[in-house]
Amino acid sequence: MNSPVSPQTLLAQLHWRYATKKFDTTRKIPADLWSPLEEALVLTPSSYGLQPWKFVVVTDAALRQQLKGASWNQAQITDASHLVVFTAKKTTTPADVNHLIQTTAQMRGIPPAALDQYKNMMLGSIRAQSADQLGNWNSRQAYIALGVLLTSAALLGLDACPMEGISVPDYNQILRLDAEGLTALCVATVGYRAADDKYAEGAKVRYPAHEVLAHR
Amino acid sequence: MNSPVSPQTLLAQLHWRYATKKFDTTRKIPADLWSPLEEALVLTPSSYGLQPWKFVVVTDAALRQQLKGASWNQAQITDASHLVVFTAKKTTTPADVNHLIQTTAQMRGIPPAALDQYKNMMLGSIRAQSADQLGNWNSRQAYIALGVLLTSAALLGLDACPMEGISVPDYNQILRLDAEGLTALCVATVGYRAADDKYAEGAKVRYPAHEVLAHR
Repeated sequence: MNSPVSPQTLLAQLHWRYATKKFDTTRKIPADLWSPLEEALVLTPSSYGLQPWKFVVVTDAALRQQLKGASWNQAQITDASHLVVFTAKKTTTPADVNHLIQTTAQMRGIPPAALDQYKNMMLGSIRAQSADQLGNWNSRQAYIALGVLLTSAALLGLDACPMEGISVPDYNQILRLDAEGLTALCVATVGYRAADDKYAEGAKVRYPAHEVLAHR
Repeated sequence: MNSPVSPQTLLAQLHWRYATKKFDTTRKIPADLWSPLEEALVLTPSSYGLQPWKFVVVTDAALRQQLKGASWNQAQITDASHLVVFTAKKTTTPADVNHLIQTTAQMRGIPPAALDQYKNMMLGSIRAQSADQLGNWNSRQAYIALGVLLTSAALLGLDACPMEGISVPDYNQILRLDAEGLTALCVATVGYRAADDKYAEGAKVRYPAHEVLAHR
């Protein structure tokens, strides 16, 4: 079987991408490219399928200006075509488990009771963890989504910059995340690189494979 | 500009993928598809570019059998063509920062002193975090790589199953990760689905976009 995407295309795009510092402020991602990226986020796999996250796409200019102030004034926050804030649930509760069970039963046309074993595994897993551990667990899942977004954007020929340099408390307050039991983690700005972004030219710095990848 | 990969192809592959429960034990991923996946892992972006991870590809059959015992005996550990263990550094030290600075200076042909501002940002960032926080930070970065791998595999037409159900202490001991300052986090098994894996047929359970994605 031929690959749906060739390894050459995959690697060309992963080499092509870089943490874009300067976006072309005149270019907006068209809906027919943006909407698949949102769908890619929604399709992200997670532990047990719990999807302990919310992706907040911020388009309001005033809100983005405010978030820029909570992001060390990094220009990408306002200059990129799109801004996605990655958030995770601060904890996971039996109610979250029940919601997943109900949704699964409905989507698969089976009685919820048929999922009791799966449900009990999840309940056991959340009982075994402290609130802090659950928060960290959820955060890690959200970073899977960041990897999905960055890879997907590169394949669609869109530039992106993942950014952790944000004030989490300020983001939580500005976006009223606390009330939803969520906390901000990081953002991704997505758009088109400016023609004169000198960071596009720098050699990509990755450790040689033998330092970060082992065969056993 | 046309996208290097069409949104249709991207989404078709993200819908096609699923957490494979039963792999075809007779099929091995050929080197010309596996080696790009390793390269995709190495190319994963990370905070500050610190790459606080090691990806351990386990091919030794006896070792995989041992790891299966530390993974609730889940069959994918031995049955999939390839097994990748995601590990992260347990902490980040000034030596890690120096190593990145030296590597960056060398790859970009600039004196390390030209990177002092970047270096001091990183040193400040690690000083501001406890050992626990640094470990969690590193773990989150490694999950970006998991997202990159799962997306890349799907695009190449390869099946995968991300798995967190492992005994971390056992993995650390079996793979001697402690001695390298690493801890196991999760694994991904990659290969080809068995024709009779009934999980391939189940509807993909994802919350509707309005539950996990907001526009502001």
